[in-house]
Amino acid sequence: MLKSINAIRFTGLDMIDEANSGHPGIVLGAAPVLYTLFKNHLNIDPKNPNWFNRDRFILSAGHGSALLYALLHVSGFNINLEDLKSFRKLHSITPGHPEYAVTEGVDMTTGPLGQGISHAVGLAIAESHLRARFNEENYPLVDHYTYVLVGDGDLQEGVTFEALSLAGHLKLNRLIILFDSNDIQLDGPVSNASSMNIESFVKSLGFHYLNVDDANDIDSVDEAINEAKESSKPTFIEIKSKIGYGSSKEGTSNVHGAPLGLEETKRLREVFDYKEDRFEIAEDVYDDFKNSLGKRGSEAYKAWKDIVDTYLESNENKDIFKDILENTLPSTLSKTFTLKPNEKQEATRVSVGNALLDLFENYPALMGGSADLSGSTKVKGIEGPFTKNNRTGRNLNFGVREHAMAAITNGLTLHHLRGVAGGFFTFSDYMKPSIRLAALMGIPTLYIFTHDSVAVGEDGPTHQPIEHLAQFRSLPNIQVLRPADKNESLLSLRLASETLDQPTIIVASRQNLPQITEPAYDAFKQGAYLLKEENNPKGILLASGSEVSLCLEAADVLKNEHNIEVNVISVPSLDRFLKNEKKVRETIIDPKLPRLAVEMGSEDIWYRVADDVIGLSRFGESGDGETIASYLGFNVDSIISRFKALL
Amino acid sequence: MLKSINAIRFTGLDMIDEANSGHPGIVLGAAPVLYTLFKNHLNIDPKNPNWFNRDRFILSAGHGSALLYALLHVSGFNINLEDLKSFRKLHSITPGHPEYAVTEGVDMTTGPLGQGISHAVGLAIAESHLRARFNEENYPLVDHYTYVLVGDGDLQEGVTFEALSLAGHLKLNRLIILFDSNDIQLDGPVSNASSMNIESFVKSLGFHYLNVDDANDIDSVDEAINEAKESSKPTFIEIKSKIGYGSSKEGTSNVHGAPLGLEETKRLREVFDYKEDRFEIAEDVYDDFKNSLGKRGSEAYKAWKDIVDTYLESNENKDIFKDILENTLPSTLSKTFTLKPNEKQEATRVSVGNALLDLFENYPALMGGSADLSGSTKVKGIEGPFTKNNRTGRNLNFGVREHAMAAITNGLTLHHLRGVAGGFFTFSDYMKPSIRLAALMGIPTLYIFTHDSVAVGEDGPTHQPIEHLAQFRSLPNIQVLRPADKNESLLSLRLASETLDQPTIIVASRQNLPQITEPAYDAFKQGAYLLKEENNPKGILLASGSEVSLCLEAADVLKNEHNIEVNVISVPSLDRFLKNEKKVRETIIDPKLPRLAVEMGSEDIWYRVADDVIGLSRFGESGDGETIASYLGFNVDSIISRFKALL
Repeated sequence: MLKSINAIRFTGLDMIDEANSGHPGIVLGAAPVLYTLFKNHLNIDPKNPNWFNRDRFILSAGHGSALLYALLHVSGFNINLEDLKSFRKLHSITPGHPEYAVTEGVDMTTGPLGQGISHAVGLAIAESHLRARFNEENYPLVDHYTYVLVGDGDLQEGVTFEALSLAGHLKLNRLIILFDSNDIQLDGPVSNASSMNIESFVKSLGFHYLNVDDANDIDSVDEAINEAKESSKPTFIEIKSKIGYGSSKEGTSNVHGAPLGLEETKRLREVFDYKEDRFEIAEDVYDDFKNSLGKRGSEAYKAWKDIVDTYLESNENKDIFKDILENTLPSTLSKTFTLKPNEKQEATRVSVGNALLDLFENYPALMGGSADLSGSTKVKGIEGPFTKNNRTGRNLNFGVREHAMAAITNGLTLHHLRGVAGGFFTFSDYMKPSIRLAALMGIPTLYIFTHDSVAVGEDGPTHQPIEHLAQFRSLPNIQVLRPADKNESLLSLRLASETLDQPTIIVASRQNLPQITEPAYDAFKQGAYLLKEENNPKGILLASGSEVSLCLEAADVLKNEHNIEVNVISVPSLDRFLKNEKKVRETIIDPKLPRLAVEMGSEDIWYRVADDVIGLSRFGESGDGETIASYLGFNVDSIISRFKALL
Repeated sequence: MLKSINAIRFTGLDMIDEANSGHPGIVLGAAPVLYTLFKNHLNIDPKNPNWFNRDRFILSAGHGSALLYALLHVSGFNINLEDLKSFRKLHSITPGHPEYAVTEGVDMTTGPLGQGISHAVGLAIAESHLRARFNEENYPLVDHYTYVLVGDGDLQEGVTFEALSLAGHLKLNRLIILFDSNDIQLDGPVSNASSMNIESFVKSLGFHYLNVDDANDIDSVDEAINEAKESSKPTFIEIKSKIGYGSSKEGTSNVHGAPLGLEETKRLREVFDYKEDRFEIAEDVYDDFKNSLGKRGSEAYKAWKDIVDTYLESNENKDIFKDILENTLPSTLSKTFTLKPNEKQEATRVSVGNALLDLFENYPALMGGSADLSGSTKVKGIEGPFTKNNRTGRNLNFGVREHAMAAITNGLTLHHLRGVAGGFFTFSDYMKPSIRLAALMGIPTLYIFTHDSVAVGEDGPTHQPIEHLAQFRSLPNIQVLRPADKNESLLSLRLASETLDQPTIIVASRQNLPQITEPAYDAFKQGAYLLKEENNPKGILLASGSEVSLCLEAADVLKNEHNIEVNVISVPSLDRFLKNEKKVRETIIDPKLPRLAVEMGSEDIWYRVADDVIGLSRFGESGDGETIASYLGFNVDSIISRFKALL
């Protein structure tokens, strides 16, 4: 009813006025659309906000947070009026942009444009995969829609195109995109920056397109959503709206991101003939939601719960499904990680890739693939590719869509699958915005990057990472693992699997490496451990990844030809190491001994543990990998001379 | 003639066989297309490879470098057979992917997919702008096309969509894209990963679409290019080809990235009835190019040179055009940077923004804008927006296309304009792949990022940079400047302007800051300088940006209430500072004094100059900016207690 729509509108405006910060334009314009979605369609249960089979709703236009919080409040989620009054204040559950795990009913963190819609594609893939894999007659365990609200800004982002083109290709027909089409963006009319034909654009990508002339025409919105639900393709519903509807700045970019102010909001109450005071919501508005969304959701939840309880009693797949449902690690996992002696040289991309195949066998939630580089990265899921005809496949052919790959694997992870993305380490740059979101949300997506240094060789500096280790070590709430050989590769994958509260990056070599380690898991987990211990060490060589074996070689020469004993410490995770207490750190790396660190990447961070660093503060070269590495100082001679200079 | 096409093909294959590394698929498939372009259309002069008004050709599918080098060789560029034999070898001028400033005739560095095509949009904007701005009757100073060769992979990248949608919007009709459409990508047939309708897709973005059924039908290729040249829109020519044409692996992804091998290449010579031996090219092939491209280009260059010489003698705009032509700084530049005392608090985004407007007035080559955030970033060009109807405008409305903005501003810079891009610092993540390319090419694009810390406030952690300073300080060949106030903002912009061999990142605050500095330019350029000097300092506080004034405050309290004198050092550029010789560094920051660094970002790098760091290894919060900063330890009390603990 109109009163409910206005209740959401004014509650949103009141929050923004109270915070003196926020985005009223979308609140006024898009309220009828979300009202219709929540009231008539969204299958969620406010009393069970994490219900596994709920419809997902992603507010890709995350700046519309006030609108979402107001809706969640009237829908009966655990967000009270005081929470709404604390909008955008420190430690409130109503932060400036929606945040996953902070607010019940918020399915992911949004704000950076293009992220919501592309993560939603991951959610829709997960739904479709789980549905095909687990549902049986009378057991509709997974059976829901994924809805997204996007704005004009979202649609200009490259990652959106990547994700939509994959969604169209995969015919993700349970994905329904609601486009709040108001022709305005921050710097002015959309027509200043874009003149693409949205309808042909989304159709060219394989979407079903519908349009609604007026967002306030909730019957038409309703009808369009009904039609979308029946489509065999993903659906894109363009809904024309007016930004800041009804306000004096309606239809202008000025109403996007600045509070209307008490006076204008008061005036608007009269214009809309809305009687309630600030932060006052009439009982019949609550009832409106209780009798629709509330009733529908709680009944659906109960019905589902009964079915699942029965399923979990005796179905042959109950253990697998339960692990997915509860986000727990399968008992089969440990099978994967037995260290084996291995004399053969092997690139760690091969070691990680082979172990990953084992892991896929033993970890049923794992799903993912590579961005058109599976032959090189060795990151490839099992049970065939996930396609429009094979929904049970656990490999995803992402195409050359690195950014969407990161977003989509995060979406899988948000749906209790464990997303795995593979790529070249330099091209992690394309994925950074979504990797950051995974870290911020604290979700355990697994990113496997290969071709981890200038030793990549012939492909040259565009393909040779330099700053990337530093870049991700500086990112909060993510772990970066760079194994030195096959055994460390296994332990990296084990640690990644077992880490459920943050994403992991594993960085692997293109080139072959000798087998040199057999660490205890506990030592490995500390991020650094003594690999070669001398009786009378005059110093320490520190390295990660492919440089560890080089340091061992240098240590041998130092001992045999220069009569200098040095310890060698392998540092598979410098960021993990630095998180140890000082006492622990000093037990592992003795600060009283001269220390030289060797790593084919930016050197700055190594000064935290070393007196000198052989690193890289320049780009690489095209040529034979070994030749380049040596040319750039990664050879036994320069290690020896730099180390001796420390003594 | 067919013999020339085969000469390019086999020279490319011979290079790849010799290097035992490279990508034969595109060499065999796309050779006829590039032959036609070079022979009949491309207006370039191999004897004057940097001719300002040459047609630009971007090999967006950079893995086709062997094809390009072979073509450049037969066209008469300064690349000899020995260079071709050194393909992909260390220090050759024929590296694995084309590199700007390494090889004559290479207009930009390519390899990371999507970059070439999106930089090309910047080149086309530059051409169109310069043409409108400088050409007069009888003075066609700027008047050329921008051609791009793209593959299927390029078209799946998000940045490509962003750039193409802007190119269509701006009606860049001198942009001609040749799509080597071979239906194959690395992981298999394109149809495994994509089913978008390319024709409707590019048309929806405002492109003229043409297609050619067979790449070997060079008359049709020729005709399509002729038609494209006459179009009022940018043109996209889809040319069906066969990857690895003629080889035993034709039409499969196996022929993409692995050498054919001597035997197969020999067999192919027979199949193609190509008589010349390895690295042997017949004289009539050279003649074929000399009599077409060579003659056309050298005549065009001479005609242009005459015109420009006359223009430079007396035209009223001759000084401006000459600066652009020669990539030199204008004499008017110095006017911009007079430091002024200013008592008023001001956000450095405002200080930088205002100085940038002055700079626009005094630096005619400057062109750029923001990705739909000009109101917030204050980064906006003058003389109106560059649109399809106003080609002389120097402001670009990029829309929410951060990645393309970075690529396009690089494209402007490559065409001797000075590209300026503005955005929020967290969203630099979206731009990283192109920023990296600017650093790698050593071109002086200017990136201005605002909202530089958790002090952004209410918008919360998605909008609050943490790792970004570290990330860019670790990137080679770029400078990062974070001014503390208005005067440092002016000097940052001055230093950025004067730096012509690398890009610059200026990072500015959202919040107001007091005016506290008036440094000598030479001291500023060293990256750090003594701001507050005491007679008997017991230690040093180090900070950049908004934390400098906080440190001054803390120093006052330490002196007045704790009787401890400390020096305060402003560090506008930690990366520049670390590039000074050790002796200089120790003159500025005395390593014998206890040093505490304070910066709202990742702390690791600061340990290179400080004993302790108040930094951030967690994400931010949503709330009032000052409240958040203080909550996270950026307040006088915590500086005092952390500093005292150092004593």
